[in-house]
Amino acid sequence: MIEPAYLTDPAEIYRRSFATIRAEADLARFSGAMEAVAIRMIHACGMVDLAPAIAFSPDAAEVGIAALRAGAPVICDAEMVRHGIIRRLLPAANATLCRIGDPRVDTVAQARGTTRSAAQVDLWREDLAGSLVVVGNAPTALFRLLEILEDGAPPPALVVGVPVGFVGAVEAKQALFARAGDVPFITVHDRRGGSAIAAAALNALAGECR
Amino acid sequence: MIEPAYLTDPAEIYRRSFATIRAEADLARFSGAMEAVAIRMIHACGMVDLAPAIAFSPDAAEVGIAALRAGAPVICDAEMVRHGIIRRLLPAANATLCRIGDPRVDTVAQARGTTRSAAQVDLWREDLAGSLVVVGNAPTALFRLLEILEDGAPPPALVVGVPVGFVGAVEAKQALFARAGDVPFITVHDRRGGSAIAAAALNALAGECR
Repeated sequence: MIEPAYLTDPAEIYRRSFATIRAEADLARFSGAMEAVAIRMIHACGMVDLAPAIAFSPDAAEVGIAALRAGAPVICDAEMVRHGIIRRLLPAANATLCRIGDPRVDTVAQARGTTRSAAQVDLWREDLAGSLVVVGNAPTALFRLLEILEDGAPPPALVVGVPVGFVGAVEAKQALFARAGDVPFITVHDRRGGSAIAAAALNALAGECR
Repeated sequence: MIEPAYLTDPAEIYRRSFATIRAEADLARFSGAMEAVAIRMIHACGMVDLAPAIAFSPDAAEVGIAALRAGAPVICDAEMVRHGIIRRLLPAANATLCRIGDPRVDTVAQARGTTRSAAQVDLWREDLAGSLVVVGNAPTALFRLLEILEDGAPPPALVVGVPVGFVGAVEAKQALFARAGDVPFITVHDRRGGSAIAAAALNALAGECR
């Protein structure tokens, strides 16, 4: 067999990737499990300058890890997020849920003139208490989550809120930062975000459970 | 009902997002369907400065659209990519395939000391002729694809090759640019990429089929 001219060993690829991130990114703000989360988020997007944009409540990573260990479900705003979660890392065979395909979502979205992403959030209530919510796609889903929390929906243990884009993404993440009250959160303070960064944060927490 | 303080109309969110991208991004290099592809790729990551990093063969978008219309399958390197494809946009109920979950992949990966992402590429051969390959995750998958094409595997119609990260991603995309021969391609000339950008490029092509 001819040796390929590129690195193929998965463990070595991870090792070198994380070494490059540690060498290039300013990780001084992060410690413990939150450092692992930041590294994984940077790894998912290929941008070391994501580091200064990452915002988090002080206990976010520890609370997320405890919730995962306790078997909490992971609620995702998009199937892309759900399929980015590395299930073998989950410490308690945690459920990974996404309600956007629920047959009721279209009706609710059209009746309210809102997105399907936001309409599904009303179907999160029964699983919300103590869960990990991971929003990687839709600003409207994060806005709607904050609304139902203000209306008294049971709080999740952690919100990873990193919707992406040009309309509402910055504002939704600012609202998470400002309005989430005592719900621990992890977010990114600019337009960046997305399913891969969202799933990566969750995967880092799951990886830290071992 | 209290009017929410954020935009909820999906069509208007898209319209304003694309208007912002047109206002802020330098799209002069793009025309026709490729402009739509560039806009969707930028939309997926929230970064207008992705525009100058996008590279493509002159006929990439048109060839991709023709292949989709002809019913070509879409082969994805990751389930995240596959689940980012908006199926209702596909013009011919095109198959969307990902082989990473195939039970043979683990064995091949371990025997060769390579990633599961790369090992699955050998299972793409039977669907490869005239297909659309969308690599959003693994540099090793893109490297392996180029290897099997050099070994005489039937060429796809288009390769959307945007693996992300710190080890091999830049190199794999440069190899696509340099070695793909007459296989049309769309790529990004830096560390950036990922499942969302990959799926967005495919979704743009599908959207242009109408």
